[in-house]
Amino acid sequence: MAAKKTPKYVYYFGGKKADGKADMKNLLGGKGANLAEMVNIGLPVPAGFTITTEVCTAYYENKKKYPKELKEQVLKALQKVEKEMEAKFDDKENPLLLSIRSGARSSMPGMMETVLNVGLNNVTREGLIKKTGNPRFVYDSQRRLIQMYSDVVMEKAAGVEPAEGKGVRAQLEHELHKMKDAKGYKSDTDLTADDLKELVEIYKEKVHKVLGKPFPENAMEQLWGAIGAVFQSWMGKRAISYRRIEGIPDEWGTAVNVQSMVFGNMGDHSATGVAFTRNPATGENYFYGEWLVNAQGEDVVAGIRTPNPINEVGKSEHTSHMISLEEAMPKTYKELDKIQRSLEKHYKDMLDIEFTIQEGKLFMLQCRVGKRNGTAAVKMALDMLKEKLIEEKTAVLRVQPYQLEELLFPLLDPKEEETAFVLCKGLPAGPGGAKGQIVLTANDAVEKVKQNPNAKVILVREETNPEDIEGMRAAQAILTARGGMTSHAALVARGWGKCCIVGAADIKIDWSSRTINFKGEVLKEGDWISLNGTKGKVYKGDLQTVSAAENKDLVKFLTLVDKYRKLKVRTNADTPEDALKARQFGAEGIGLFRTEHMFYGKGSEEPLFHLRKMIIASNEAERRAALNDLFPYVKKDVKGTLAAMDGYPVTFRTLDPPLHEFVPNKLEERKKLSLALNISEEEFEERANKLHEVNPMMGHRGVRLGITYPEITEMQIRAIFEAAAELLQEGKKAFPEIMIPVTCIETELAHQYEIFNKVYPEVCKKYGMKKIPHLIGTMIEIPRAALAANKIAKYAQFFSFGTNDLTQMTFGFSRDDIGGFLGDYLDKKILKFDPFQQIDQPTVGELMEIACKRGRSTRPDIKLGICGEHGGEPTSIEFCHKIGLNYVSCSPFRVPIARLAAARSALMNSKKSKSVNKKKK
Amino acid sequence: MAAKKTPKYVYYFGGKKADGKADMKNLLGGKGANLAEMVNIGLPVPAGFTITTEVCTAYYENKKKYPKELKEQVLKALQKVEKEMEAKFDDKENPLLLSIRSGARSSMPGMMETVLNVGLNNVTREGLIKKTGNPRFVYDSQRRLIQMYSDVVMEKAAGVEPAEGKGVRAQLEHELHKMKDAKGYKSDTDLTADDLKELVEIYKEKVHKVLGKPFPENAMEQLWGAIGAVFQSWMGKRAISYRRIEGIPDEWGTAVNVQSMVFGNMGDHSATGVAFTRNPATGENYFYGEWLVNAQGEDVVAGIRTPNPINEVGKSEHTSHMISLEEAMPKTYKELDKIQRSLEKHYKDMLDIEFTIQEGKLFMLQCRVGKRNGTAAVKMALDMLKEKLIEEKTAVLRVQPYQLEELLFPLLDPKEEETAFVLCKGLPAGPGGAKGQIVLTANDAVEKVKQNPNAKVILVREETNPEDIEGMRAAQAILTARGGMTSHAALVARGWGKCCIVGAADIKIDWSSRTINFKGEVLKEGDWISLNGTKGKVYKGDLQTVSAAENKDLVKFLTLVDKYRKLKVRTNADTPEDALKARQFGAEGIGLFRTEHMFYGKGSEEPLFHLRKMIIASNEAERRAALNDLFPYVKKDVKGTLAAMDGYPVTFRTLDPPLHEFVPNKLEERKKLSLALNISEEEFEERANKLHEVNPMMGHRGVRLGITYPEITEMQIRAIFEAAAELLQEGKKAFPEIMIPVTCIETELAHQYEIFNKVYPEVCKKYGMKKIPHLIGTMIEIPRAALAANKIAKYAQFFSFGTNDLTQMTFGFSRDDIGGFLGDYLDKKILKFDPFQQIDQPTVGELMEIACKRGRSTRPDIKLGICGEHGGEPTSIEFCHKIGLNYVSCSPFRVPIARLAAARSALMNSKKSKSVNKKKK
Repeated sequence: MAAKKTPKYVYYFGGKKADGKADMKNLLGGKGANLAEMVNIGLPVPAGFTITTEVCTAYYENKKKYPKELKEQVLKALQKVEKEMEAKFDDKENPLLLSIRSGARSSMPGMMETVLNVGLNNVTREGLIKKTGNPRFVYDSQRRLIQMYSDVVMEKAAGVEPAEGKGVRAQLEHELHKMKDAKGYKSDTDLTADDLKELVEIYKEKVHKVLGKPFPENAMEQLWGAIGAVFQSWMGKRAISYRRIEGIPDEWGTAVNVQSMVFGNMGDHSATGVAFTRNPATGENYFYGEWLVNAQGEDVVAGIRTPNPINEVGKSEHTSHMISLEEAMPKTYKELDKIQRSLEKHYKDMLDIEFTIQEGKLFMLQCRVGKRNGTAAVKMALDMLKEKLIEEKTAVLRVQPYQLEELLFPLLDPKEEETAFVLCKGLPAGPGGAKGQIVLTANDAVEKVKQNPNAKVILVREETNPEDIEGMRAAQAILTARGGMTSHAALVARGWGKCCIVGAADIKIDWSSRTINFKGEVLKEGDWISLNGTKGKVYKGDLQTVSAAENKDLVKFLTLVDKYRKLKVRTNADTPEDALKARQFGAEGIGLFRTEHMFYGKGSEEPLFHLRKMIIASNEAERRAALNDLFPYVKKDVKGTLAAMDGYPVTFRTLDPPLHEFVPNKLEERKKLSLALNISEEEFEERANKLHEVNPMMGHRGVRLGITYPEITEMQIRAIFEAAAELLQEGKKAFPEIMIPVTCIETELAHQYEIFNKVYPEVCKKYGMKKIPHLIGTMIEIPRAALAANKIAKYAQFFSFGTNDLTQMTFGFSRDDIGGFLGDYLDKKILKFDPFQQIDQPTVGELMEIACKRGRSTRPDIKLGICGEHGGEPTSIEFCHKIGLNYVSCSPFRVPIARLAAARSALMNSKKSKSVNKKKK
Repeated sequence: MAAKKTPKYVYYFGGKKADGKADMKNLLGGKGANLAEMVNIGLPVPAGFTITTEVCTAYYENKKKYPKELKEQVLKALQKVEKEMEAKFDDKENPLLLSIRSGARSSMPGMMETVLNVGLNNVTREGLIKKTGNPRFVYDSQRRLIQMYSDVVMEKAAGVEPAEGKGVRAQLEHELHKMKDAKGYKSDTDLTADDLKELVEIYKEKVHKVLGKPFPENAMEQLWGAIGAVFQSWMGKRAISYRRIEGIPDEWGTAVNVQSMVFGNMGDHSATGVAFTRNPATGENYFYGEWLVNAQGEDVVAGIRTPNPINEVGKSEHTSHMISLEEAMPKTYKELDKIQRSLEKHYKDMLDIEFTIQEGKLFMLQCRVGKRNGTAAVKMALDMLKEKLIEEKTAVLRVQPYQLEELLFPLLDPKEEETAFVLCKGLPAGPGGAKGQIVLTANDAVEKVKQNPNAKVILVREETNPEDIEGMRAAQAILTARGGMTSHAALVARGWGKCCIVGAADIKIDWSSRTINFKGEVLKEGDWISLNGTKGKVYKGDLQTVSAAENKDLVKFLTLVDKYRKLKVRTNADTPEDALKARQFGAEGIGLFRTEHMFYGKGSEEPLFHLRKMIIASNEAERRAALNDLFPYVKKDVKGTLAAMDGYPVTFRTLDPPLHEFVPNKLEERKKLSLALNISEEEFEERANKLHEVNPMMGHRGVRLGITYPEITEMQIRAIFEAAAELLQEGKKAFPEIMIPVTCIETELAHQYEIFNKVYPEVCKKYGMKKIPHLIGTMIEIPRAALAANKIAKYAQFFSFGTNDLTQMTFGFSRDDIGGFLGDYLDKKILKFDPFQQIDQPTVGELMEIACKRGRSTRPDIKLGICGEHGGEPTSIEFCHKIGLNYVSCSPFRVPIARLAAARSALMNSKKSKSVNKKKK
């Protein structure tokens, strides 16, 4: 055994050399690692040291005691800092002040504590005054230390829990205001050096009185107190709940960064600023940032003073009159510009930097990869690729899939949103922004737009159903009081890429007055409202929309993306028009064509009428007669869709929903149907009532219909093959896939397969063809189907995961009814996310994995896909990639997002598997 | 390697020695193995040989060709038979005739073919006439051969498919009738020897004409034709579908038994009979059977002639005038009696035997373990144990769990059932028989019985709901038009052991005339009907019921059973009364106490009213007020139930169903509630509508209610612990288990656990107790819960499988709606059984196994049970035993059945595991 080495708990940085470097984030936290890296590449960084995350872990494992070696290591590092900074901590002549900051592996903004100016007391302040010649600055710094320290270290970290408004911070604030009031000052800057000196003593007294113990004058005590407070804050309530949400393990711990203070507020040769190496909003390649003269970092961030643009190129109409750092301190600016260039080159990414200028001397305080919006992300990725700063794979990984959303939809003007009146909030079911006049029925929506094709209407409903389809198409957006993210309205809207908000529980529609009560604010039909479907917010009035300009970069970027994608991306589309649209978005097939959707919203009501006749039929003869009438319509739509997809596979799902969904509610239509069927209205009612079910989602639907009424399946299969045969005869391409829904037992599929075995040769014979290319498969959307996949695969050439229903059954959550508790579940953190949006990998995902494994054990070349809503959600797409699906299928508007998510999954997982292999070796 | 030995395909039996024996059923089939065994123990069996099941398998594997060694082995065996029987096959002087019969491993009665009198032709018949001196018998035998052979071998086995009524059998029957008509005969026995001789020729001509080829006169051709026909019939449609239902693999194959013919129809010294070594209906220990003089075996079975009792002891009032075998042939009877005694001793079980007496000589043709009813099975097991014929374990295994049912419930008189008018059929939801007058509402049922406590009514409903509970209690039985085996009516009735038929789809209730139309037969309120809940049959009129007398043997038998049981057996009970009843049946605890059931049918409406007030409350204050009113009622019932169980554990499930189920339908009650809540009727309607759900089974229910309204859980936990504390203070025992339903995420349980953590110490403190014994656990009834069981077990001290809901979610079958397709699924063999009755082991069972394994991985001592309906079903109980559950819980009336099933599982599985170990060694 090797001799036990003393663990290294403290990493020094400063001068030209640091103990750490950028890739030591796990040990040093993000901030500490980047400070070390900047030192290593020769940038001016105030010296300091990082206490590792391991100390945090050890601290909590060992009853809040530090490892015994820590103290010595801290003192040694402090000596190095003193040497580098040519000043001494707790020195009455030439005192060094320190900042104490947290720094976790993953950024947790604002969740942990910071203490500045540590080391200042009535003795050291004299040295500092001598050194700076600026007593006001020194007293102000001391006052700030007391304020921050008493709050963070003496109260919070010590576990004191004052009543609301009785905390030490509030009481010191009160003293400050009292003094300002007494002296008639308006601003903090009116306070003189003497005022501040007096305030320091008032503060100390108050602290003693409120907390029952004196403010520590001992600098070393201040230092250890501040370090302890940072570690303590890792287990603060806010931090814990933030980690729960973000999925950050408690074991990671935080590092503590102890760094020499530098001051941007030492006069007109001092300044501070934050900047980005490129414009984070547009992606344009120029140095972009803001600065303030004679200020501290927090002043820029807090927004108390309006900061100036950092350079000339960054000036806008509104800021052209302000002085830039480039003008004010040209030499320092040049130095900074050089630094930012070298940093970007070094990190090969756009960086977010913080700097301070202390009496003309530039110090770098922070650098990290900068946040950017979608447009900027795409532009930067392409630009950096062109500049050869990064390679293709990195460019693909630089854009998050969700960031593409904003490139695809119009938005409400964010500035108008800030001030607009919020009527209510709901679930963000369809992204983008829209505005229009309220209509309360689908029919009104259709009529308004018929009268004036430029009319903009918003359809507001309790909830929508298939009969509302035409009105939903006509409306700019849909707003419903009920339903979850996969309710009818949400599904349809998302499919169209239409703005939609659902489950806005505060809406009450009063039909007698035809008004809507939004928690007291009453609007009537025709009133304007605006919707932010990305955030789920509903505003009163007619807000501006901003058309996120068609980004040419997007096409270029997606072409790049496709080079690295393994998963195919298909779309869910129900009409030839949608199919065509989806191909423009890059869809490589249709993963879900819902036969039943073709009957709605087609202008002509005939097919729907025949469908209803079929449903209300009470025997096979009546049913077959109705099916014969229906046949040409189905065939026509199938043919159009197959033609639009030009040989790409099209998955036709046979009739899925419970039949009662199609029984019309309107009396007039019910009468018409009973006439057509030649039955009395009573008989009609009786038949319709017989279709009623208590839990229709688990009732007589899907393949269950095909088994009790095989003639329904037969008609559909015949229509599909005849359509394909005709296209092939016309010299066109066609590749239909027939998908049986709601299967849970292999015998169900065997039964349907027999129908295929009868119809397929008949169609081949009719058209004189030897074969028509096709596949027959099934949805896997019932837990039992996943578990029995080995048996089901005997009859299925493909599986398509219906993760909506699979989630529904696995959780026992009715999609239509989760409105009653999902909000509570998310609020109370019972659920971390809505499982109808993201695949719940440990359970629904496990069932999918089981199904894949068992399906392949029977049929190694089985084709595997997903057609649930999750097929367009990035984390779910990554999961689909990992378990080896062949394709994902999603709404047309999500196809670009899915393409990117698929490519990223392929890249990230090949990386991961490589690194795993490395470890194993 | 050993030299390849010629496989033995043919097993001879006859004389004193057979090649086979009783334990070779797999190879020789049941019939062949027992024939061999009888020979081995020295009984008189007509010589013959068995062609093994392996030949059948080889035949089908090898394109319907026999193994090449078969022919030689058959001929050799035939020679031995000829020698033993002192006659020669195909001999014109002293011909041997053969019977060819199937014989599979498992009995498949009537599913395969038999050919008798093989070897008879125009040449051999002359020898037989000479030998028997009975030409009429010989011609009749020849005619029967032609009839049977042409049908079975020449038509069916050859794959000829004649039109309805055009088959050769029908055409030969026609010739027979033609001759009888022409000669003016009434009965077959009027036919003379000459008539029959003529008929033989007519038959041969007809066979040639109908089938296009002559009837084979060659005896050897007849033999091979008959053997082939038996093998062929293994793959006949009837046999295949029988095997599908019974779960018999095709690979087992059938054996073929070729045996010398003996004749019971050779005159007054000949006879045939079937008998049981004990009375199969009562279990009494005397030789019981029937015989016919001058007859063939099929005559006894076919019921054309009324058979005589075999002995004096077996004579009844109706048969006392008939002559018994004991009287008619005392010597032969004695011989037979001796044989049956030795057989029972040898087989150590009650046997079913067939014999034939040919001219005074007794031959045994078959023996097998005899079928018996439940009463007899219990009595025989106990008697044989007392007689030291069998040991205890064997006695336990001698009774099938389902056989106990008939010992527990009254029945309709089976004789009356035979002739009664069947109104309709439904699903047999509650066993036993009942009769009564039709009532159409629960209220009427209550009223009728209130007016006359001896009134017998049958409640007939479309479907039942919780509001019908009181009427259901008052009624003798329940009949519904809708619902499956686990619908509300079925669950409740089964729980009470009440006769119930559900899903009788042919029922149409006409409310205007208050009549019921049973497919044309119209009955009105007050008309009598009778129900057989075991078979699902509804009869018109007032049938006799037979009270299956309280069997004292049952108690004795169950005491024996309990010695070998590993699983505990609990009951599902919702009131102190039910709890007491269940303990009398031997329940060792309550596995499911449904809190919500206590509110119905209690005479007083107060608790229900408070519950409804709580449900319709719109804020926490209103809800807490209602909960406070509810608290004393809950506590009282909990206390009563805990007291009744006297220290046995009682599992209280917290509120489970969706709230809207409790909203009253009656306007009057709705008004009363709105008054009590001080809200307008409109407001009431609005609140009630808000509770409406599309799929309530997957909606806001179970733990989801406890999370949105923690105060509901809190009230229940407090009531349970206060009740327990009071009992303990009174010096009594109490062991409550708190069970959270519908859990699917561990955080749900964590949330509820916090409520417990608050309430439990409060109650302890209030009663000055250090602890109150208890467990906290959860239902596993959602697929996700099974998959996440490792996480859930962090908070759950026990799991109870709710297999009703688990099956529901795993299959996606709504229990309330399967009426629409389950019948079709069973008819079309999509499902082999109703998964709500038997656990679907490959899928629902797999989820249970996963949950057990993962639960134990987190908490090795976790207590595991089942409280779904499956807990009372024998195959499911065996499965529960195998996966190592601690207990099953079922309706009180199924407790005895569960006890037996549990004991059998323990015995069978210890046997199995032993034999597995043996193999491994």
